[in-house]
Amino acid sequence: MTKFDEATQAIRVDDTTYDVCLDPGYSVGGMLNGGYLMAVILRAVVDASPHAHPVSTTAQFHRSPTPGPARVQVETLKSGRTAAFSRATLIQNDTPYIETLITTATLPETSAAAYTSTPMALMPPLSECVRLPDPKPESGMTLNAQMEMHFDPPTVGWLQGTPTGVPEARAYFRLSEPQDPDPYILALAVDALPPVVFSAGTRGWAPTVDLTWHLRALPAPGWLTVLGSGRLITDGWFDEEVEVWDSQGKLVAQSRQLARVGRG
Amino acid sequence: MTKFDEATQAIRVDDTTYDVCLDPGYSVGGMLNGGYLMAVILRAVVDASPHAHPVSTTAQFHRSPTPGPARVQVETLKSGRTAAFSRATLIQNDTPYIETLITTATLPETSAAAYTSTPMALMPPLSECVRLPDPKPESGMTLNAQMEMHFDPPTVGWLQGTPTGVPEARAYFRLSEPQDPDPYILALAVDALPPVVFSAGTRGWAPTVDLTWHLRALPAPGWLTVLGSGRLITDGWFDEEVEVWDSQGKLVAQSRQLARVGRG
Repeated sequence: MTKFDEATQAIRVDDTTYDVCLDPGYSVGGMLNGGYLMAVILRAVVDASPHAHPVSTTAQFHRSPTPGPARVQVETLKSGRTAAFSRATLIQNDTPYIETLITTATLPETSAAAYTSTPMALMPPLSECVRLPDPKPESGMTLNAQMEMHFDPPTVGWLQGTPTGVPEARAYFRLSEPQDPDPYILALAVDALPPVVFSAGTRGWAPTVDLTWHLRALPAPGWLTVLGSGRLITDGWFDEEVEVWDSQGKLVAQSRQLARVGRG
Repeated sequence: MTKFDEATQAIRVDDTTYDVCLDPGYSVGGMLNGGYLMAVILRAVVDASPHAHPVSTTAQFHRSPTPGPARVQVETLKSGRTAAFSRATLIQNDTPYIETLITTATLPETSAAAYTSTPMALMPPLSECVRLPDPKPESGMTLNAQMEMHFDPPTVGWLQGTPTGVPEARAYFRLSEPQDPDPYILALAVDALPPVVFSAGTRGWAPTVDLTWHLRALPAPGWLTVLGSGRLITDGWFDEEVEVWDSQGKLVAQSRQLARVGRG
């Protein structure tokens, strides 16, 4: 079992209850990453579903849970031949932290697209991309060690004080420990980029209010390409869209989150 | 009170229960439109919330309700100064039909964008756009009479057997009865276009599985511009993205739905 699989496992207690253990190794600024937390919840939901894949996930982030034991409460709302609908809640110390609605279905191992668009942006070759400096231990950025991300250089210009002025972030992505991508890793990938508003010139903690992502196909082995952008920053709110493409040029995930602009 | 306001009103029974009456005038092919149903649910949720505007709505469409009395059950999950989180369920004959997670907040009357992108597509002037022929009475397309939509001609070429081959649909939009746009009309607008897959060459009933939309700003009076597109049609599933811009060139709503390709 890989470190990621272990950190996201959900142990069935009964038909609607799963025990989980939130791993301190997936934190950003001392807060557990939303993508990691979605992966944990999805393990429970998929286990409780007759279907194999989480094709749609919406998560409302009410509070930030702490590393350690927690519980996922799963309610199957409707179960059909094509799809099943579930509600799941991440609970710690009897308090709900994350509320989700999830649609599961069973996708084919090999998908055949009737129509596909092109990526929202072209990436330079991996060899021309850059890694971020290792975070200081006191920064609480433990997530960085779990992932290997190589960034399209202009989209991390904000680190040197030269943001592009446009909300964007783009990177090649894989886990540090060798593991083929799967839907749970995609849950991590859609929330793994630095907030796209950093590139537009803002800084500081940018909390996700809610995030919806769709699994569109099962990813092929190899690097993922994670493309992030935003359409509007207004009145303290911004949207972040992420597309994930696999190594065979397939669109495998799409997300949009609504988040608050940091005051840092 | 306008016809739309009346058709979407929710009467408070107690802290968590609202009576509604689903109007037969908002049907597509005999099924009540998902955008209309979201507007009904949002009336109840906003009434129960300390905040004024539904900034994020995710709806899972489990079953298709019929016109007539129904109930919205609202549960406030967390209420804060910036935003409140709710769960709401549309219930008819004691059966749940639509399950939602909704975030409410209070947006300013006049918004000041720190960054805004451009529309995903340019529209020709209204005078060069086209209306669809009135549906036959037996088609069950009562929704058409409530809305005035003027389409970008190529995106309805499928009606004459010349689809563009690309999932897309674009139109100017307003209600038939004069009424300034508001968040409830935007809920209708994000699900008002013909399925974008029609333009890619497929036909037939294309049921929405789930839809998430974000209210980004309060719309100015006047026409709305509704821009629809899709990124991937695969294995019987497609995504439909809709952007709504107001008459002052503001992005006021963004949506993505996951739907099934019709077999018609």
